[in-house]
Amino acid sequence: MKFSEKILNRANKINSRLIFNLDTEKGIKILDEIYPYIAGCKINRTLVDVIGMNEIKKIIANYPDLIFIADFKIADIPYTNEILAKNAKDAGFDAITVHAFVGSDAIMAVKRNIDVIVVVAMSHEGAKEFISKNIKKFCELTLNLNIDAVVAPATRVKEIKKIRRILKDKSIILSPGVGAQGGNFGDAIKNGADFEMVGRAIYNGKNPEKTAKEIYKKLSFK
Amino acid sequence: MKFSEKILNRANKINSRLIFNLDTEKGIKILDEIYPYIAGCKINRTLVDVIGMNEIKKIIANYPDLIFIADFKIADIPYTNEILAKNAKDAGFDAITVHAFVGSDAIMAVKRNIDVIVVVAMSHEGAKEFISKNIKKFCELTLNLNIDAVVAPATRVKEIKKIRRILKDKSIILSPGVGAQGGNFGDAIKNGADFEMVGRAIYNGKNPEKTAKEIYKKLSFK
Repeated sequence: MKFSEKILNRANKINSRLIFNLDTEKGIKILDEIYPYIAGCKINRTLVDVIGMNEIKKIIANYPDLIFIADFKIADIPYTNEILAKNAKDAGFDAITVHAFVGSDAIMAVKRNIDVIVVVAMSHEGAKEFISKNIKKFCELTLNLNIDAVVAPATRVKEIKKIRRILKDKSIILSPGVGAQGGNFGDAIKNGADFEMVGRAIYNGKNPEKTAKEIYKKLSFK
Repeated sequence: MKFSEKILNRANKINSRLIFNLDTEKGIKILDEIYPYIAGCKINRTLVDVIGMNEIKKIIANYPDLIFIADFKIADIPYTNEILAKNAKDAGFDAITVHAFVGSDAIMAVKRNIDVIVVVAMSHEGAKEFISKNIKKFCELTLNLNIDAVVAPATRVKEIKKIRRILKDKSIILSPGVGAQGGNFGDAIKNGADFEMVGRAIYNGKNPEKTAKEIYKKLSFK
């Protein structure tokens, strides 16, 4: 099954377009509470650094219904990318984020081992220097490589619209940058994204379950 | 002390321009043997995935004279990059590789916490699609941000020459891609690099110590 189908299956089942950013240990503690509201979980290297891949593997094994994304923003040579991809696959991840700018062979070295989500745009100011200028080419690369998922930031809805126009229905768009980074809940989806990724707004709040439920409602399929 | 001075100090002391790629567990076992011949060690995420940051920290603590580079090819948003940089610093690394592609603020978020080595060129075929086209701009960015070290592949000596011309004496050049990836020992240095990075050619051989010593001799300062 393609990655987009896999995550949309879970999303449709529980009516959720919310992906949780599991970037810190705080997040692990609240997973049980917020589990009913999230389609998937993205895990960053920041968490791997602290608890290691073995612990990550255990967390993933605890939630067989959830879709797990290794948000590792892979950007190495094909030889290394292949090993990193295999490690992520072994840990139980469903897909991994890879930078478009490293080029076709580097992306394909990953894709041969685990489903790929291509980073075609980013939310920070510095992204304007090189990344934003190449969005069209990055999207064309994604289509050429037959990849069905990309990342594009909720903070730049114009870019999401552009990406949706280019990718048409060939790819789902996952959108980080909602909440703590300034994007409003629902804006990315209104403009063409399929999922919004939220972390700090949930785990830093007083009542993570309540917050997750509220965001879930805002983002749910109509 | 700047990173370039730090690694050149060790390099001059033992007359070595060799950096060892500690990418697998095989590499750990031979560190004692090859230690006299190497100026530094670069550690990839492939090893962190397998043994975790705590074990990495212990290895680094065992070799206080060696310069350790986290070859993590950082390419995330500033907020995340800062955490990744702090984690690497805490583990004892002297510097970390960061992609020029992610832009100034993302690089500076790292630099405020640990010395940065900017990836301005890469060795694989796909690097031609986006990275090679931006080498000049990447080098200018490196100069503007006052960074004194870059990575450029031994497999593309023309690119090394170009990078040296732009950076003049403001930055050292570390060159991977020697040995297993096709670069000849010494070619990168002849063309303007300061260090060559070797991994598989050393740890996959029958006699790693002998191999390391031979490469060391080929690369030593005249």
